[in-house]
Amino acid sequence: MDERAALRLLSDELEGAGDDAAVVDGLVVTTDMLHDRTDFPDGTTRYTAGWRAVGASLSDVAAMGAEATAAVAAYAAPTFDRDELLAFVRGASDVCELVDTEYVGGDLDGHDEFTVATTAIGRTDDPVPRSGARPGDVVCVTGTLGRSAAALEYFDRAARGTDDGDDADGGDEGTEWLLERANALFQFCPRIAAGRALAPHATAMMDSSDGLARSIHQLAEASDCGVAIESNRIPIDDAVREVADGEDEAFELATTFGEDFELVAALPEDALPAVREATDVSLSVIGSVRTATDGVTMDGDELVDRGYTHG
Amino acid sequence: MDERAALRLLSDELEGAGDDAAVVDGLVVTTDMLHDRTDFPDGTTRYTAGWRAVGASLSDVAAMGAEATAAVAAYAAPTFDRDELLAFVRGASDVCELVDTEYVGGDLDGHDEFTVATTAIGRTDDPVPRSGARPGDVVCVTGTLGRSAAALEYFDRAARGTDDGDDADGGDEGTEWLLERANALFQFCPRIAAGRALAPHATAMMDSSDGLARSIHQLAEASDCGVAIESNRIPIDDAVREVADGEDEAFELATTFGEDFELVAALPEDALPAVREATDVSLSVIGSVRTATDGVTMDGDELVDRGYTHG
Repeated sequence: MDERAALRLLSDELEGAGDDAAVVDGLVVTTDMLHDRTDFPDGTTRYTAGWRAVGASLSDVAAMGAEATAAVAAYAAPTFDRDELLAFVRGASDVCELVDTEYVGGDLDGHDEFTVATTAIGRTDDPVPRSGARPGDVVCVTGTLGRSAAALEYFDRAARGTDDGDDADGGDEGTEWLLERANALFQFCPRIAAGRALAPHATAMMDSSDGLARSIHQLAEASDCGVAIESNRIPIDDAVREVADGEDEAFELATTFGEDFELVAALPEDALPAVREATDVSLSVIGSVRTATDGVTMDGDELVDRGYTHG
Repeated sequence: MDERAALRLLSDELEGAGDDAAVVDGLVVTTDMLHDRTDFPDGTTRYTAGWRAVGASLSDVAAMGAEATAAVAAYAAPTFDRDELLAFVRGASDVCELVDTEYVGGDLDGHDEFTVATTAIGRTDDPVPRSGARPGDVVCVTGTLGRSAAALEYFDRAARGTDDGDDADGGDEGTEWLLERANALFQFCPRIAAGRALAPHATAMMDSSDGLARSIHQLAEASDCGVAIESNRIPIDDAVREVADGEDEAFELATTFGEDFELVAALPEDALPAVREATDVSLSVIGSVRTATDGVTMDGDELVDRGYTHG
């Protein structure tokens, strides 16, 4: 059974499974596990790892339209290095501070591979599910897409010891710059504030961590609707253009690579001004909700359900 | 840096670290990570694994004197087998039901070793720390100690294909019985109810997961006090007598092996009747709190700080 089949099985078993986070008595709870080999490319600092691992869980809280209350992490590694551990905790604390929540520590554990399990908790009396999108709603995405794809490419270049970019320094300084850039792109702001602004109006919401294309499909499936996307309205991050071989590859990376933690939401068009008034985060309308028989399309053609299946 | 040094480092960094769980705005949060090789002996069913992993986190909630609100687990395995996954979820759900809380699912994740990260959440307006014990208080423990040590021995015997116990069947049936007994002993009732009964009176509380001897030392250190234990008052589980080679070994296993999830608490002696009235769980007075200069003793001799350091 692959991960998606297993998740479907569980959503039959557990009430509330299938959304980005579970909700119990107004508490939003979500947990994730990340591994060195699959989630933290060579060159990822422990500061970035702490930021990103905790940020990923906070993104799930954001996707429910909740405010964040607290986050914890269980940190497993073969050895406990003082500097690494402190860097991890600082990354975790900094991303929490950015969204006005508290990092309250967690568990330490000896393990042969660096592994992090994070849990974030939030509160909302009115969680936004994936399942409420209605034909006629507009579909929006926060921020820009493709930062993580760009980061991965920079990590790769650093590992290969080459700098294919514009930086002319080369050599060690090149590698250092590549890693700094990659780590910076790998840190992101969980969209708690945007999620709070969207929550009163959104009919369906989720985060884009599996890639935009897959997220749109998941939202359409949960809401039993179709979605029509217009490719020229998708907000592509400049960073992915820096690394991509032309606009087509940039577009492909931005829409299918995933691991960006933006929000994808459906809402009535007339609510847009109120949402934009309530948050500084950019909000791009990328399409509209249709009936299920219309399917999921981009520029009128079927949008292939392709993206990142988390390892 | 070993795990204990790393934990000390973190408790300097993070407010609230050093207790069984963190507390934020009346919410109690705790997380643990468990691994196949170190925490689930060969023969542990996935049902037991789900029960035990989630139960361990609920025990930390109990140790704060909180009621349990919800639990989640991130489940990582090389493959997702339908029956294993459902068994895990049922074990997790059953232990939650036992303490009147909700298992709300979690994350699935491909990983080469079966690994589970659990988080439990609780609520209390009045958390009980490890640090409030006062000279003159009595020291109590809930239930009995040694069940997990006994379980481990039964798992070992099953793995060796031998049944050193009284069961005369031998062969496959013996192994089946050994595994059934081991799994049953590995499941435990998190002491949420007892923790709630103790909370209004306890000056210090924690769980016994690192073994009684180490727990007593940790409580004494956090409270800056001494503790005098009387060995003949320690409640030893019958199961550990079944497997131990004599009473001395049974006592040793019960007090230092750990991985039992009982509560260790300090409280004024005159509060005992009220606590016993409020819970059906047995409560054994095993000693008393002394001044720090008296040290940590058992029957008048120094109690060695020995126990289980979680791998």
